[in-house]
Amino acid sequence: MEILNRNLKDIKERKPYDNITFEPIGIIHSPLKSLKGIPIQFSMSQENGSVEIKKELTQGLKHLDGFSHIYCLYFFDLVHLPVDLMSKPFLHNEEKGVFATRTPFRPNPIGLSILEIDKIEDNIIYVNNLDILDQTPVLDIKPYVEGFDRIESSRSGWLHDKIVEKRS
Amino acid sequence: MEILNRNLKDIKERKPYDNITFEPIGIIHSPLKSLKGIPIQFSMSQENGSVEIKKELTQGLKHLDGFSHIYCLYFFDLVHLPVDLMSKPFLHNEEKGVFATRTPFRPNPIGLSILEIDKIEDNIIYVNNLDILDQTPVLDIKPYVEGFDRIESSRSGWLHDKIVEKRS
Repeated sequence: MEILNRNLKDIKERKPYDNITFEPIGIIHSPLKSLKGIPIQFSMSQENGSVEIKKELTQGLKHLDGFSHIYCLYFFDLVHLPVDLMSKPFLHNEEKGVFATRTPFRPNPIGLSILEIDKIEDNIIYVNNLDILDQTPVLDIKPYVEGFDRIESSRSGWLHDKIVEKRS
Repeated sequence: MEILNRNLKDIKERKPYDNITFEPIGIIHSPLKSLKGIPIQFSMSQENGSVEIKKELTQGLKHLDGFSHIYCLYFFDLVHLPVDLMSKPFLHNEEKGVFATRTPFRPNPIGLSILEIDKIEDNIIYVNNLDILDQTPVLDIKPYVEGFDRIESSRSGWLHDKIVEKRS
């Protein structure tokens, strides 16, 4: 269906949001049971586990098995709000603005990991490189699409020469 | 501060979430005022605009100017729920599972765009490649980090040979 024919709210009646509420679409099953020793990024992890999608959403996983990687968006449910706007990240000793880091301690504690798909069975996506705590609520799954998401030339600011294997 | 010393909720008291609520951290200013003609992906856009972060969160943008790109997470506020779990995407004529597409019409209508930073002034991030409607609420900003996020080898499933410049 073309987007303009979809059932949309009337753009003229938009108003600013104070609160936006989501229901989790699923949950993480991970060998990472505590924050101690958790890989600090998915790109440095070899932990196997799975993303369990709610049974009633299983149909939404159709055709995902052709992709090798997914974006997994999730909720850092252990974070207390409000957070400090400056944060000392794992990979540097100086405080940085939270939006210049990937810290969980952010005003909206949403996590983003690119996970490699091992296989999909029914409502379970098995993945190879978890950096996510067991039982974490999942907000969305999107396919990683090289043609959209692989940035050929980028600058990584203070993280430029800081990326090393490190655990929390 | 190390993660284990941070102010965390007690992991033993975790319970499943029915609802997760966020406050927008800011808003999109975009020349895209209606859904007609909107670029279907950021990688195909040359639309200039900005992400305005709430004044009180400005400090969180410190050090972001060293990065060339950001992940922008936002709320597709015009989407009516619930959505169909199968969706006909822009780039193909056959229905796909929603989690195998980047459609806005997903169970949690969260958008993800990788935006190129032009400059940052106070609480405003000016960007070069918007695919986001004007006045869209913003949920999070994260730096794009090549060492984490650039996947060297991936498969793009049904989208493999479908990525062409197209507008909605």
